[in-house]
Amino acid sequence: MHGAVLYGAHDVRFEERPAPAIVEPTDAIISLPATCVCGSDLWPYRGIQAVSTAVPMGHEYCGIVEEVGRGVTSLKRGQFVIGSFFASDNTCPHCRYGYQTSCQHATPVIGAQAPRLRVPLADGTLVATRDVPDTDRIASLLALSDVMGTGWFAAEAANVKPGGTVVVVGDGAVGLLGVLSAKQMGAERIIAMSRHEARQTLAREFGATDIVTERGDEGVERVKQLTGGVGADSVLECVGTQESMMQAIKSTRPGGSVGYVGVPHGVALEGQPLFFSHVHLHGGPAPVRRYLPQLIDLVFAGTINPGKVFDLMLPLDQVAEGYRAMDERRAIKTLLRP
Amino acid sequence: MHGAVLYGAHDVRFEERPAPAIVEPTDAIISLPATCVCGSDLWPYRGIQAVSTAVPMGHEYCGIVEEVGRGVTSLKRGQFVIGSFFASDNTCPHCRYGYQTSCQHATPVIGAQAPRLRVPLADGTLVATRDVPDTDRIASLLALSDVMGTGWFAAEAANVKPGGTVVVVGDGAVGLLGVLSAKQMGAERIIAMSRHEARQTLAREFGATDIVTERGDEGVERVKQLTGGVGADSVLECVGTQESMMQAIKSTRPGGSVGYVGVPHGVALEGQPLFFSHVHLHGGPAPVRRYLPQLIDLVFAGTINPGKVFDLMLPLDQVAEGYRAMDERRAIKTLLRP
Repeated sequence: MHGAVLYGAHDVRFEERPAPAIVEPTDAIISLPATCVCGSDLWPYRGIQAVSTAVPMGHEYCGIVEEVGRGVTSLKRGQFVIGSFFASDNTCPHCRYGYQTSCQHATPVIGAQAPRLRVPLADGTLVATRDVPDTDRIASLLALSDVMGTGWFAAEAANVKPGGTVVVVGDGAVGLLGVLSAKQMGAERIIAMSRHEARQTLAREFGATDIVTERGDEGVERVKQLTGGVGADSVLECVGTQESMMQAIKSTRPGGSVGYVGVPHGVALEGQPLFFSHVHLHGGPAPVRRYLPQLIDLVFAGTINPGKVFDLMLPLDQVAEGYRAMDERRAIKTLLRP
Repeated sequence: MHGAVLYGAHDVRFEERPAPAIVEPTDAIISLPATCVCGSDLWPYRGIQAVSTAVPMGHEYCGIVEEVGRGVTSLKRGQFVIGSFFASDNTCPHCRYGYQTSCQHATPVIGAQAPRLRVPLADGTLVATRDVPDTDRIASLLALSDVMGTGWFAAEAANVKPGGTVVVVGDGAVGLLGVLSAKQMGAERIIAMSRHEARQTLAREFGATDIVTERGDEGVERVKQLTGGVGADSVLECVGTQESMMQAIKSTRPGGSVGYVGVPHGVALEGQPLFFSHVHLHGGPAPVRRYLPQLIDLVFAGTINPGKVFDLMLPLDQVAEGYRAMDERRAIKTLLRP
């Protein structure tokens, strides 16, 4: 089997890898009609997060169950399933509390940029759809595995409520799906921070009512102007830098909420400004598993089409171009077909 | 009029000060049957927070309205009133959102360690009680002005719910009243972190079910043991140091909440550990004004007696000893009688 392997900065290769096999009795093997490149894959790709060895890439997936270990009780061959980028048992206290990405037995899923994938803790991790979906739903279902669930968590962590005013910092796929999520949750005003035309267009399509092109303190100032000097009720931080985090906090009204899902890189929050900002802060790796049943229903009903964030479709063997296009911001998100 | 003035580290003096007078038409002058020393007064007293000039001290107060400016419409001479340590108009968007300490016209109240006090924005700041209270209620009503309201906010910010497991970091007056607040909000288990016998006793009286004497990572370990490896649903951070803040975050279960009210001194939160902790974080200067009507009712009904945190009563002219006793942890909190 061939799959994507990262060797170092800007060096992702499509090469022979061992075919996945059942290792633990709780594993499942699934075949993937589509996979994709995540914004978080760009951290190691850009060398910001060092890799010391060749790493199989990819953690977003959906597909058909090919094989299950003897300990798997709820799944069978031929079912269409979706799982989160973190495997979880879905039975421990953290899972039952809704934080499956903090599962006491959490394991990252890796190597999904390939035709087949081993998923640990299959009973807890995978959610089967009622039917095998039509081909045109695959992209949207694939998006649920990470970006859509992450955008949804950002909006929920930012306490988006009907009628609320929302700011989304970050116009990557997660930020755009944060806009979609805020719209679904009834936000009345959604301000998307973006200076990129194609992304602005998609943000508007997903429900953004205002676009702000300024960044940093100028961006904060613009949000203040748009909200009568008050700030936003809810701010979704979907980048993970010090600048974006501070922009998010300063754009939030006292008592409002920041939902942050950009993996922080070089971020440190000073105690006193945070204290006097009076914001609620919540975030982390999105507990996508919690949302899968609900989001699968919304996709099957045609209510949401998160697959629209894929604006570049490539055969899997062109994965390196898929990374390059995202790195250079020529593509929002690359879908790969094995 | 004589009042307390801080000149520098460990140098608080009881000396002649100008009698307060109406400056703005929205001011009120009140006479104080009692006042007190706050844990936050110890930051400048200890020299941790520098003072560049002689500063009139005291920001906790209740008492009788003596005089109101011509712009004050809701108060009259002879009423008994309580206010927050921050004056607020109670009409701006931040006040209406419940964050009166972020009022667009917020002004700190200073100089309350004296027989009389000027309170700005009196209509918004002061809440009158139905009757002038008996002398034995004064201490508990005085506590509402800051420590009780702050403990209450810590518990609310930490999302304390009926049946929940709560940890309180800090056994000062705010921490102890955080225990009381958590009990009022229905917490089933309340773990107080304290190594001081008198404070442990009061914590138990206020509702603590467990006492943990370990601190830092050992304290975290002990909380984990007491909660089956899970961590607490809600943690109240009532100190404001890096160690206490990290202890609070690490004691919280993923998805749980930290309410922090200790004014941060030298605190910086690293982005990634915070992200992966999955905690909710909320805090800041407590919007005491929001809680005053409810807490006044609870005191008048005899449901809560927050005045029990005052374990040292002194005449106002011995204010310097009041500070010393708290600094040396001989007293939890000093009440001063003008």
